[in-house]
Amino acid sequence: MEKETARMEAFSDGVFAIAITLLVLDVHVPEQVISKAALLTELRGSWPYYLAFLLSFSSIYIMWVNHHKLFKQIYKRNSAITFLNGFLLLLATSVSYPTALLARYYDSPAQALVVQLYTGLFVLITLTYTLLWTLASKHQDLLRPDLTPEAITQIKHTYRWGVAGHSLAFVTAFVAPPLALLLSAALWTYWAFTSGRLELTHPKV
Amino acid sequence: MEKETARMEAFSDGVFAIAITLLVLDVHVPEQVISKAALLTELRGSWPYYLAFLLSFSSIYIMWVNHHKLFKQIYKRNSAITFLNGFLLLLATSVSYPTALLARYYDSPAQALVVQLYTGLFVLITLTYTLLWTLASKHQDLLRPDLTPEAITQIKHTYRWGVAGHSLAFVTAFVAPPLALLLSAALWTYWAFTSGRLELTHPKV
Amino acid sequence: MEKETARMEAFSDGVFAIAITLLVLDVHVPEQVISKAALLTELRGSWPYYLAFLLSFSSIYIMWVNHHKLFKQIYKRNSAITFLNGFLLLLATSVSYPTALLARYYDSPAQALVVQLYTGLFVLITLTYTLLWTLASKHQDLLRPDLTPEAITQIKHTYRWGVAGHSLAFVTAFVAPPLALLLSAALWTYWAFTSGRLELTHPKV
Amino acid sequence: MEKETARMEAFSDGVFAIAITLLVLDVHVPEQVISKAALLTELRGSWPYYLAFLLSFSSIYIMWVNHHKLFKQIYKRNSAITFLNGFLLLLATSVSYPTALLARYYDSPAQALVVQLYTGLFVLITLTYTLLWTLASKHQDLLRPDLTPEAITQIKHTYRWGVAGHSLAFVTAFVAPPLALLLSAALWTYWAFTSGRLELTHPKV
Repeated sequence: MEKETARMEAFSDGVFAIAITLLVLDVHVPEQVISKAALLTELRGSWPYYLAFLLSFSSIYIMWVNHHKLFKQIYKRNSAITFLNGFLLLLATSVSYPTALLARYYDSPAQALVVQLYTGLFVLITLTYTLLWTLASKHQDLLRPDLTPEAITQIKHTYRWGVAGHSLAFVTAFVAPPLALLLSAALWTYWAFTSGRLELTHPKV
Repeated sequence: MEKETARMEAFSDGVFAIAITLLVLDVHVPEQVISKAALLTELRGSWPYYLAFLLSFSSIYIMWVNHHKLFKQIYKRNSAITFLNGFLLLLATSVSYPTALLARYYDSPAQALVVQLYTGLFVLITLTYTLLWTLASKHQDLLRPDLTPEAITQIKHTYRWGVAGHSLAFVTAFVAPPLALLLSAALWTYWAFTSGRLELTHPKV
Repeated sequence: MEKETARMEAFSDGVFAIAITLLVLDVHVPEQVISKAALLTELRGSWPYYLAFLLSFSSIYIMWVNHHKLFKQIYKRNSAITFLNGFLLLLATSVSYPTALLARYYDSPAQALVVQLYTGLFVLITLTYTLLWTLASKHQDLLRPDLTPEAITQIKHTYRWGVAGHSLAFVTAFVAPPLALLLSAALWTYWAFTSGRLELTHPKV
Repeated sequence: MEKETARMEAFSDGVFAIAITLLVLDVHVPEQVISKAALLTELRGSWPYYLAFLLSFSSIYIMWVNHHKLFKQIYKRNSAITFLNGFLLLLATSVSYPTALLARYYDSPAQALVVQLYTGLFVLITLTYTLLWTLASKHQDLLRPDLTPEAITQIKHTYRWGVAGHSLAFVTAFVAPPLALLLSAALWTYWAFTSGRLELTHPKV
């Protein structure tokens, strides 16, 4: 059976690859510094930029790994899948914006606000993954022929835990922003592992 | 029958993927803000940037979907197709420029001007799609072997309505700029649906 | 016979696609304009940016078309081809730099200098294409099995005319910069047509 | 035997292609220059930008060549390979940051510092390649079926020499920064040649 979604995956891969690479453009290069000590101080003060870069790079990479795994199960597409995938790419592309805000304002009175925006975006992203899978799995004929109902349910559960976790990080951002970021990092790590687990459960194509 | 246009499609996909992702670079990140309230005000005032990003992202995504569907019907290329495709990519790449102007000057006395430029570009884009299809469909041997004359005509009609609609949006921009943008958004949605319809009419490759 | 250069082509396509799309980032967006008339004046004054964008976009697109056609004839690679191809990609990527200089300083006393740099880069590019083909065609076993000696010579001639033409444009830049740019545009058009001719002479793979 | 790592390679190629092309954005375009002589002076003074661009472009290109050759030997992936590859892409993407610092501060009292950061990144990169190969080669079933133990060891030795060489460049940066850069350039050239040697030793896939 031919995979109809091949060109959509290739296009999505392109967008993920560019979105992940553009993140480095937001890392602050100090200007007009006149001594070695001053440059060192500037670089040390840029740590929120490095942290934001690292966190967002990891997030988009794991989003890509998951996208890859999700579309391994989807063989045909309909209009809803095409446009939800477009929305997912819009969100992946957008990551650089709250990342830039986070890097610039983490060390400021607006810390809570930028962490809320940052974690809020990931709530939206996990919701979109869930919706994409919910819509795709409604139509058995869109899926990989040998996918069992148990596997479909397992994927759904994994995404629901993702939504719950990122929502918790979002709520935490209102009371303890640094903790919210830590939680966000932990969640991507968790997602990385559970998506590994998913793959082991089913035979590979 | 081998598809001679495969590498041209892959290259075009690359250009579309980059053009769509670069749009986020134009979204304004507020600088030198000292309080949370000030940042919030700045972000709220940035809504034309978010709107322009959303509109242009959707436009390029639907352009890509259409490009994909168009080249599903074209199996061979000649010099005219190669260079019209190049012109189409030039226009797709250019979208970010009037988008940046729109975002920066929507909330200014130059509103009408930037909406005219923005909608005008889409007139050019739909005209180029129409021309590309007109030239390709003149030579039956360039097309997918099983494509019926009815299908060829249907695609032509779809593009003509696209040109008509975007021209209307362009004219509207001279009298009611916000309405012109609304019309533009509606047209992309329309195109999204009609291209879906086209696909259902013909068997897929 | 398998084509060993496939992944090199895919990577090169990626670099060409990105280089061509990044050009738009150099197109000047006017800042801090307060009236419609002022914005219109600014946009009209930005014509060297539009011209430079158009010229460089066309150049890179035709470079890509030629790269595609050249590598259709090359089936195996050696270290020399790998690194000359890398140098070609470096030059393709570099196009945006003299383009930015051209756009910014065409309307200034430094006009001749920036046109010299711009046309000079294309001398280097056509020289590199010639060298790449010279080295590849020395080893018959690297080439497409059915390529005739006449075809090999014809490609060599095409590239030599390219070098001669772009060298003429470069020399012209010292006496009549606008004429040099016109010549450069004419040459890309010429190359576009001759590369079309090459393809007609040989059966396609 | 199917190659499971195909989509990972395609994604990595995309990231390398973008990272290598973005480097040109950091090359300094002089602003507000009023005469030809002044522009010429500015361009001549920009030599550290050109040098940094050339060095980083070459580095990423050779990194890509090596990545290509490494993944020719790896047929299956596990979580460790997926995430080490992600870390490698993060480092490849990061190259533009120390490159920008190097270009801006090479001609300043902070010269030693920026050369240390630049060469330090390449120590990390070669270490990651070594670790990736060490982990992959532990599991014979992840590798190309016909790979001999001698070949596995030879690749390991090549990477170890890479780590040793870049560490030497890093240490040199503390006493003689220009020499460290020269050493770094020499090492990439060396790696280019040894990776060529590796390929000659084994039959190609």
